[in-house]
Amino acid sequence: MAVRANATARADIASRKQAFVREEILASAIGLFAKRGYRAVTIDDVATNLGYTKSVVYYYFKSKNEILWQLFQRTFELFFESAEAIRKEKLPIDVALAKMLRLHAVNVMKHRDTTAIWNRDESELEPQQRRQVRQMKRDYDAMFESVFEEGVKQGLFREMPPHVAVGGMLGMSNWLYVWYDDKGPLSPEQIADYFTALLSDGYRKPSGSSRR
Amino acid sequence: MAVRANATARADIASRKQAFVREEILASAIGLFAKRGYRAVTIDDVATNLGYTKSVVYYYFKSKNEILWQLFQRTFELFFESAEAIRKEKLPIDVALAKMLRLHAVNVMKHRDTTAIWNRDESELEPQQRRQVRQMKRDYDAMFESVFEEGVKQGLFREMPPHVAVGGMLGMSNWLYVWYDDKGPLSPEQIADYFTALLSDGYRKPSGSSRR
Repeated sequence: MAVRANATARADIASRKQAFVREEILASAIGLFAKRGYRAVTIDDVATNLGYTKSVVYYYFKSKNEILWQLFQRTFELFFESAEAIRKEKLPIDVALAKMLRLHAVNVMKHRDTTAIWNRDESELEPQQRRQVRQMKRDYDAMFESVFEEGVKQGLFREMPPHVAVGGMLGMSNWLYVWYDDKGPLSPEQIADYFTALLSDGYRKPSGSSRR
Repeated sequence: MAVRANATARADIASRKQAFVREEILASAIGLFAKRGYRAVTIDDVATNLGYTKSVVYYYFKSKNEILWQLFQRTFELFFESAEAIRKEKLPIDVALAKMLRLHAVNVMKHRDTTAIWNRDESELEPQQRRQVRQMKRDYDAMFESVFEEGVKQGLFREMPPHVAVGGMLGMSNWLYVWYDDKGPLSPEQIADYFTALLSDGYRKPSGSSRR
């Protein structure tokens, strides 16, 4: 029994180590892809960056494409699950949309490397993977569009084509991957608050605002 | 005299032809770069696309980089001069900002290929050119920021850090290069109108709007 327990413990340690190394490789790849672009980075670079030989990387990922695809799937899961969790809270619709938009912006800034890869290197995926990515985007946008439409139906939001409104609102934050500076004076949360206020109420003070 | 006049006319035709071919090469390159990415396109591709040999292209541009750099300079001029022309009209500040934002959006959609190259292939420029591009962006943003600040000063716009407001407002439209579909049901002008309304007044109907 002691032998068996030891074997189980060893297997457990080995499997935890494997999960750890896998994450380590992904993190290394994210950093390099974001900095130099997917195409310019080799499996050798990913390995050397961690002090491994490339055979270690190949033990976990059969190709550079598999790493990239893993990044795309995870990025989608992060964004989709963030929005879905808020959607499931059954909040008043204006509160729900504001919260979803705010978290979208925060996620772009907090995961800027992954977002940059997602936005820049989609063309490097296989055709079949690109089709899946298009579906992911549609699913994600559809969640925001349905919330927006519900707000219009309830008379809370202005009428406009939902895909234009959502394209604009998410686009405002997606663009942060280009200019957000994590050494700047504002935190992701502060910028996200400004964006949410700008989107919900506009930059213009309502005329007669002194009476409000 | 007749001989001289003929020579002048010939020189004029030759120079107009040269300007025409130069434009033709640029247009061909824009299409190919936008579709396949700058790195994947060769001077040979640009030439073949027009039925020329590559020596014709090299007569006009000494390298692929010179073509790319030309595209960047022209894109900047287009956007900068569009905004500057409105700025010079001395309109009420809220009208000026709305007009500038609207034209920015229209320009992104009408020149989507160039905007895509500008947004995607900046890293392909020489370090010195990249520094100039950063300065161009700062100059362009600064024009919008000064208008925004003036609107805040006049009590017409809500207070928020100008670079955050402008980063968000231009980002909303910059993102159009990713999703705008020129075969879609809405024209660039219609989408730009929705965006301008969304940015100035927000998606939320003001409470008590029934009284307005």
